[in-house]
Amino acid sequence: MFDAKKFVEESLTEIRRIVGDNKVISACSGGVDSTTTTVLVHKAIGDKLLAVFIDDGLRREGEPEFVVRTLKNLNIRTNYVDAKAGFFNVFKGKTDAEEKRKAFRDKFYKTLGEVAKEEQIEFIAQGTIKADVIETVQGIKSQHNVLEQIGIDPKIYGYKILEPLRDLFKPDVRKVARELGLAEEISERMPFPGPALSLRVLGEVTPEKVAIVRKATEIVEEETNKLGTFQNFAVLHNDKATGIKNGKRVYGHIITVRIVDSTDAVTAKARQVPYEVLTKISERITKEIPSVVRCLYDITDKPPSTIEFE
Amino acid sequence: MFDAKKFVEESLTEIRRIVGDNKVISACSGGVDSTTTTVLVHKAIGDKLLAVFIDDGLRREGEPEFVVRTLKNLNIRTNYVDAKAGFFNVFKGKTDAEEKRKAFRDKFYKTLGEVAKEEQIEFIAQGTIKADVIETVQGIKSQHNVLEQIGIDPKIYGYKILEPLRDLFKPDVRKVARELGLAEEISERMPFPGPALSLRVLGEVTPEKVAIVRKATEIVEEETNKLGTFQNFAVLHNDKATGIKNGKRVYGHIITVRIVDSTDAVTAKARQVPYEVLTKISERITKEIPSVVRCLYDITDKPPSTIEFE
Repeated sequence: MFDAKKFVEESLTEIRRIVGDNKVISACSGGVDSTTTTVLVHKAIGDKLLAVFIDDGLRREGEPEFVVRTLKNLNIRTNYVDAKAGFFNVFKGKTDAEEKRKAFRDKFYKTLGEVAKEEQIEFIAQGTIKADVIETVQGIKSQHNVLEQIGIDPKIYGYKILEPLRDLFKPDVRKVARELGLAEEISERMPFPGPALSLRVLGEVTPEKVAIVRKATEIVEEETNKLGTFQNFAVLHNDKATGIKNGKRVYGHIITVRIVDSTDAVTAKARQVPYEVLTKISERITKEIPSVVRCLYDITDKPPSTIEFE
Repeated sequence: MFDAKKFVEESLTEIRRIVGDNKVISACSGGVDSTTTTVLVHKAIGDKLLAVFIDDGLRREGEPEFVVRTLKNLNIRTNYVDAKAGFFNVFKGKTDAEEKRKAFRDKFYKTLGEVAKEEQIEFIAQGTIKADVIETVQGIKSQHNVLEQIGIDPKIYGYKILEPLRDLFKPDVRKVARELGLAEEISERMPFPGPALSLRVLGEVTPEKVAIVRKATEIVEEETNKLGTFQNFAVLHNDKATGIKNGKRVYGHIITVRIVDSTDAVTAKARQVPYEVLTKISERITKEIPSVVRCLYDITDKPPSTIEFE
């Protein structure tokens, strides 16, 4: 049985020992992993920690404001870094899923490295958890926050890595979050991938396509958050399809809705969402996003699918 | 109230009057429209009619054999034309939906024109029905069998057009089919588009992609024909997505399942298929077609979607 209280105590000692008199930067996306890491490190070393929210332009509606507000309310020193233009720039012309992930990761660490250098900071704290390590080792996907596993030397970006949650699975991370007194809206937060909406735009990632999937995501969340599933989101296809808008034939976008149950993200089941909910989602998305003509619902479990499309 | 008996009687007179001593060719795809047309014309002029089945390589599993057998059992003179290679050739490099439709249509009429010329035939009988005419006029899609509507002069292909069903909607076509004594497996047949599986392969149409969607279609039909819906089929996306096969991350194909209720194809509702059926379809498709990692279910009505994707 995992003992969250004991884990926190031991982690505080360990973090203080490793960091010493140095300063730490923590890249906080607002997810349960990175927020718990940030709060844990803050508890250990106080104002020697600087939290950074990198706005990559790929976050959900209202998310940047929410994360910055949350961190400030916890009295954690926080920098908001507007890196939107730079991120969209690295996606230009890239359509391959793995190439996009790599472009994101590289840009992410470069941006973070720049902040670390400016602030003369030695360590980067990251919310890596056990599933990330396992999946990367098995070659399921290259998580952007598991540098050593994929042969990236953090030193080339100019810092050392601190990963206090790397031996925990998600349910234990949530226990640690509760132990640290984090609000439920953080501790029970749905997983959200590091590369964010870039994974949910098939093909090239552009500001226009991200805006479409962001709006679709908002609608899916409004209609299904009450179902209490593990993850619920929207994906924008690169393929287009025919539809009819205002009595005219058009060639428009396709959105897939993905809603899964899972405990650890290692396996997952497609939720059997009541059709009246799906119909409402389809009607809202095709009405509120005029360029979308078609909504699909993902009926595949993991395996053989993954939860995300990329 | 539509009187099928009277319609048949008047049509026989009219067909005989128009055709005179000439010969007629009828392109029969096996669908209710073209088969009813073929049988009606055969009843009018007997062996002056030659039925032709053009195998474009885009038909469902077992379909070419079924159509040729059906026509021969009705004692209709029938030619099987193997045009598979030629059709795949015209699809090379074409990814736009309308461009693909046009390529199909042009190849179709050229092939038919060649047969007509060989056989020294003056007229081509076609299964055009009212919905085709209306949709083409409204610009919803360019049906491949409504030449005049789209400004194509049939004479450039070398023949005149005979369209005995052009004023009927689908339910009345079925009544005519029953009046003509056609078997239920024809008269109650689900609609199937002229360009066949080429509409159900997004992006470039290749023999490999058609083979995948053909197999997926077979699985969808086996699992859902008993539901008695208006149409039930599979679509192969051009987009790919990540999945896990044999414990390894792979980048594989996506199939969408589309099942709709409709009376006339002008509007349609996505069927609320029981989840146990969808789960079985998803399991079978991802297992029996190893390159497919993900199955989606189309939850959109027409409008704003169309029934087909292209």
